[in-house]
Amino acid sequence: MTYCVGIRLNAGLVFLSDSRTNAGLDAISTFRKMMVYEKPGDRFMVMLSAGNLSISQSVREILQVEKIPNGDDEPITIWNAKSMFDATRVLGSAVRRVYEQDGPSLKAAGIDFNCSMIFGGQIAGEAMRLFLVYSAGNFIESTRETCFFQVGESKYGKPILDRVLTPTTPLDEAAKCALVSMDSTLKSNLSVGLPLDLLVYRAGALESDQIVCIDDKNPYFKMIHDTWGQRLREVFEGIDDPRWDGGDSAHPLLARSERYETLPKIGTVDDKIV
Amino acid sequence: MTYCVGIRLNAGLVFLSDSRTNAGLDAISTFRKMMVYEKPGDRFMVMLSAGNLSISQSVREILQVEKIPNGDDEPITIWNAKSMFDATRVLGSAVRRVYEQDGPSLKAAGIDFNCSMIFGGQIAGEAMRLFLVYSAGNFIESTRETCFFQVGESKYGKPILDRVLTPTTPLDEAAKCALVSMDSTLKSNLSVGLPLDLLVYRAGALESDQIVCIDDKNPYFKMIHDTWGQRLREVFEGIDDPRWDGGDSAHPLLARSERYETLPKIGTVDDKIV
Repeated sequence: MTYCVGIRLNAGLVFLSDSRTNAGLDAISTFRKMMVYEKPGDRFMVMLSAGNLSISQSVREILQVEKIPNGDDEPITIWNAKSMFDATRVLGSAVRRVYEQDGPSLKAAGIDFNCSMIFGGQIAGEAMRLFLVYSAGNFIESTRETCFFQVGESKYGKPILDRVLTPTTPLDEAAKCALVSMDSTLKSNLSVGLPLDLLVYRAGALESDQIVCIDDKNPYFKMIHDTWGQRLREVFEGIDDPRWDGGDSAHPLLARSERYETLPKIGTVDDKIV
Repeated sequence: MTYCVGIRLNAGLVFLSDSRTNAGLDAISTFRKMMVYEKPGDRFMVMLSAGNLSISQSVREILQVEKIPNGDDEPITIWNAKSMFDATRVLGSAVRRVYEQDGPSLKAAGIDFNCSMIFGGQIAGEAMRLFLVYSAGNFIESTRETCFFQVGESKYGKPILDRVLTPTTPLDEAAKCALVSMDSTLKSNLSVGLPLDLLVYRAGALESDQIVCIDDKNPYFKMIHDTWGQRLREVFEGIDDPRWDGGDSAHPLLARSERYETLPKIGTVDDKIV
């Protein structure tokens, strides 16, 4: 499995990916899932991929040379596209090319054509944009209301993203949030694993050197891992336990008058079901 | 969808279920998923069910009268079983009976025979036990190492259970933990909904009146809902942001010497890919 998250904020973009690939629990390996496409001063793009590794590796390879027709003008590539929308169309086209090549044989083998990608960045003259590309090559774009995308094993790590992220979240805080989200996912799903790739892009920079590969010795991620679980338990303990008798609680679980208005039970009288 | 959790502690058992059933997002209804089987002083059992509602309703109905052969002795029912293991075998048999009745027609209609149940309680003379029953009627039992089971939409709410619950957790704290877990699930999945049924059973009691139906007006659940998200954000804010330059941080994201040892980028020089 895989867990990747991409976040678009007013201040910039954050990308985080794990690196575990497995074909069954007894065939685990490490593959990086983040690709960076950079032409400093002109464009900066990042792709995170999930799904069948043979598909996503082929998509990556083809993406570097994929062209889509552009009327009488020069075909569009990710290196000359004038907008992130067009660059993402090129990525969708690369996905469809792999589908043409491998789809029928995969189908004959009973294997789904399964891949999904987060693709985001900035091209000079345009604002930053972030897309989620599906295995049919179609895609959606993040908005102010939905400022992050996840691919792969997304559920364990979603609650903290839902509760923390807004477009005004500072970049470093969003990076911290992505790492907490990853930590919860690592704890609950063995098929998501270290090392992680974390990249932070500042709006307008058109390049980034804030890229780091995080392994189990990374002091910051170790701190997150040790601190978060412990603080979560402290917060949890700080919330009142339920009081069944209502008592003097400001937040009774049951008001006294409701005490016995509960679910009907199934019982027996003299071994006859009532 | 559904979210149910059952917990076995040294002090007793905790059961929590939602009540939303949906056939598509435009066909939502409310069905209780908790059933209580009680013969005070003799036995106390609770079933939580997830999956296809027509299957789980049939299983419930049949469970009350299901019998399994017992050599020359009286057939075993949930009302005379001498152990929770045997009572759970009766439940497995009820599932298989529904499969015999409905399985072929469901298969012809392209519908999976999909149901799963948490079943736990205590029979006089035996300790409390908790089981997870699958749609083939087979089952597993909780242990000290794995003291809870979830059915339905389990992932959003699992991290807090993983971090808090151990066999020595007090009953009311476990009930609080289950409610926090449910709150995270409600926030992330529209197909899990109020009201909730919460039941707490104290070891050895062989009956329980700590059962409550929780709706959106319940003061305790409202407090959990309002407090948990806010405190989570406070804890999150209390953890240091990553420092890219290392700086004077005790937990640098990058040691200064490692600064540029990062993921290779794909770039272009004079529009040639390098």
